Amino acid sequence: MSDAIRKPDAACMVDAFRAVVGDAHVLTRPESVEGYLTDWTGQYRSSALAVVRPASTGEVAELVRLCNAHDIAIVPQGGRTGLCGGGVPVAGRESVVVSMTRMNAVRSLDVGGRTVIAEAGVILETLHEAALKHDLVFPLMFGAKGSCTIGGNLSTNAGGSNVLRYGNARELCLGIEAVMPDGSIINALTGLRKDNTGYDLKDLLIGAEGTLGIITAAVLKLVPTPKARSTAFLSVVTLEAALAVLNRLQDHTGGGVEAFEYMPQAAVDVICEVFPAINRPLEGAVATGILVEVASTRSSDAIEMHDGVIRLEAEIIELLGELMDEGLVLDAMLAQSGQQRTDLWKMRESTLEAITEAGPAYHLDISLPLARIARFVEEMDAEMDGLGFQPLTVGHLGDGNLHYALSASEGHNWDALPLEIAKEKVFALLAELGGSFSAEHGIGQSKLPVMTRLKEPAQLAVMRSIKQALDPNNIFNPGKLLP
Amino acid sequence: MSDAIRKPDAACMVDAFRAVVGDAHVLTRPESVEGYLTDWTGQYRSSALAVVRPASTGEVAELVRLCNAHDIAIVPQGGRTGLCGGGVPVAGRESVVVSMTRMNAVRSLDVGGRTVIAEAGVILETLHEAALKHDLVFPLMFGAKGSCTIGGNLSTNAGGSNVLRYGNARELCLGIEAVMPDGSIINALTGLRKDNTGYDLKDLLIGAEGTLGIITAAVLKLVPTPKARSTAFLSVVTLEAALAVLNRLQDHTGGGVEAFEYMPQAAVDVICEVFPAINRPLEGAVATGILVEVASTRSSDAIEMHDGVIRLEAEIIELLGELMDEGLVLDAMLAQSGQQRTDLWKMRESTLEAITEAGPAYHLDISLPLARIARFVEEMDAEMDGLGFQPLTVGHLGDGNLHYALSASEGHNWDALPLEIAKEKVFALLAELGGSFSAEHGIGQSKLPVMTRLKEPAQLAVMRSIKQALDPNNIFNPGKLLP
Repeated sequence: MSDAIRKPDAACMVDAFRAVVGDAHVLTRPESVEGYLTDWTGQYRSSALAVVRPASTGEVAELVRLCNAHDIAIVPQGGRTGLCGGGVPVAGRESVVVSMTRMNAVRSLDVGGRTVIAEAGVILETLHEAALKHDLVFPLMFGAKGSCTIGGNLSTNAGGSNVLRYGNARELCLGIEAVMPDGSIINALTGLRKDNTGYDLKDLLIGAEGTLGIITAAVLKLVPTPKARSTAFLSVVTLEAALAVLNRLQDHTGGGVEAFEYMPQAAVDVICEVFPAINRPLEGAVATGILVEVASTRSSDAIEMHDGVIRLEAEIIELLGELMDEGLVLDAMLAQSGQQRTDLWKMRESTLEAITEAGPAYHLDISLPLARIARFVEEMDAEMDGLGFQPLTVGHLGDGNLHYALSASEGHNWDALPLEIAKEKVFALLAELGGSFSAEHGIGQSKLPVMTRLKEPAQLAVMRSIKQALDPNNIFNPGKLLP
Repeated sequence: MSDAIRKPDAACMVDAFRAVVGDAHVLTRPESVEGYLTDWTGQYRSSALAVVRPASTGEVAELVRLCNAHDIAIVPQGGRTGLCGGGVPVAGRESVVVSMTRMNAVRSLDVGGRTVIAEAGVILETLHEAALKHDLVFPLMFGAKGSCTIGGNLSTNAGGSNVLRYGNARELCLGIEAVMPDGSIINALTGLRKDNTGYDLKDLLIGAEGTLGIITAAVLKLVPTPKARSTAFLSVVTLEAALAVLNRLQDHTGGGVEAFEYMPQAAVDVICEVFPAINRPLEGAVATGILVEVASTRSSDAIEMHDGVIRLEAEIIELLGELMDEGLVLDAMLAQSGQQRTDLWKMRESTLEAITEAGPAYHLDISLPLARIARFVEEMDAEMDGLGFQPLTVGHLGDGNLHYALSASEGHNWDALPLEIAKEKVFALLAELGGSFSAEHGIGQSKLPVMTRLKEPAQLAVMRSIKQALDPNNIFNPGKLLP
């Protein structure tokens, strides 16, 4: 008897699954299911009756009806890149993992209308490639793009570096197809830009982490490929000044800022220590480093002005000159080549790996109203320093989203540090400033305790009513999102 | 006994309302309540126990608890500019109208963070003015702006002419405060750009037409005032070609198209007949007229190139030249002054009034995937012509949103025309092409029959479950949105 298959009397359920999706797509052997039952962080490992891999929306609906009738929990699963344990079963419930990776068709791509219909199992990078063939971009962009799936992106309302310009996964989705807990299929793949015909079910399912149903396909927005781009690393005088710099850049480029990433000294130090091949973009101390990227689809922005400088870049240089004269920007490095741009992004995207390599750390994914970020960082960094922690922060500053990691300060032993007290302090200040304890990673399992503590009881009560109404048997991803 | 006050035994409820909001803010006399009980279209007139005008969220919550305890329906009301009868009571239920006009404070405006917190009763135009003082724009824009309120805008997910660039009311809202049917207050006025902590309650309440609770305040996005603008009227070769023209304009201006309004020959004819002071922007027949406006916050776009032409306009002229060479655009008129721009917009905004003046008509507010609009118009115009109707169409073409009005063709008597057959044909083709029977006006009372017929039963079932779960006594705006 394998560890993964818990109930010997489950054999007939497994047979029923086989009848729906075919023998080859119901996995039960420990070595086959192992990967599906362990989450990316390695923190959550569990068991399941089986891993089932449906090939169509009809098959998903049949599986859901079966599970609903027999009280078997359904754990929808995409590329398993979530960071909160949302994609693996919890203990105590007979579960089946429904892996969506076989539903990986790009059903259609409308070049003129700039939309694409993708199934839940399409890998994000595959969609990028499909769009690029038509000189279009699907602008959801982050590190896990090579393995995460569209279904997971939508179920967690994924963010990333381009949210500032194009929005979260939610804003990029025009319509969905989904299977609800009673096995009914919602077919809303219309791709309409305006549709006011009843409650917004699309946005209810997006970000619900598979607890209200399973998204099987979606209509997504595409945008044109930029013709000109400019990438720079800035040393800004203070974090508070960074907001003014962002607004000036936005206005000066007509809203062309694609990324505005906060990379303070401490984070850059760790990255350059762990990865000696990565060079500091600016000499000397850079307290408030900002990686900024601006892009434009205007062909006039790609015109060479002089010395090979394109107009978009010339305008950025002009603005940076002004900002330096005003004392807002202290120093700046403009990427002069594709390689230099790649290097800057490599530095940014190595952050999580570098912090993980450097030693133990506790990762917070928080957001704040833009105008309160500076106050949060200033107050909290001082508090953390007093407790023996070294905060290693990077963030999508334009979205008010900080990845705030706590590591041990020099001379402190991680295991002796008061992590619970530190977390309390972070959460207390977040609550005071109207911030969020989960900006883009979601709740999953790992953030249930803080959800209980910090989410307004009135909102939790409404969420529980909705869950109870739509999934009365609690079969969809139990033990996730709702405490 | 007045007609408006139906139940003599309701006196004690009215007293209870007075205790909450003060005597002066509970209206019961027929001449005082008359205006609150008749909708803008004049089609819906009803009675109520009283019109109550709370001044705070706490007062709203008290009123809701009272009504919930005594089975009195609550009809949330803003500026009464809705077109579907959503803001007035229905017959058969003891109702109270909760007019939000006293909750009209702009609570705060964050210039750096570019957000504003406005109460539900703030008039849209008042918010425009408040933002403009800081050189910012709240980009929700349509004819009713002088009387509609933010609460109504959000409850109906209002659209308008700038949706193409800035989105519907939904996309402009970062957070809400609301009173739920049990009288609990949801306080989610945080203004965060990223927050993945449970179900998206904000988007559930937006567009719910007051059937799930009452929005009392909202955090809204502001955008910078454009520094340059260019407005033109184009004669495009076919409606199908208009989508290509839109995409070319978008790319050429870096996504700067603020409006792309479809004004075909028949609509322009009616407008110019009813309002002789309005001049045709182009000589001769213009089958596919497009009113386009482009704007930019880039100061470089406002630089004068030659003959007083600013750079943005020079680039538009250059592109129009290309589009003419390619045969996509046949003729174009560029607004040379603020007055010419105003005239173009006056023409566009006179459409509804002109059609109403010209004679009886049935108004449809529909949307389609962009790539299918041309087919819809071509097929449907021919069908309607065969039935004796003259379609008068204008639309927010960039959003796929057509205001499709059916009037009597010359020589036909409106009362003898087969309107029901015509509606059937429109709805059938909409369903076939994946369109919507309500793009931006919502459902209210008037579209309940088509909601029953055309909305997918699985989606209606989910909506009913949500309504039942959150408002088990059906006290919030009964008889609206859900058939």
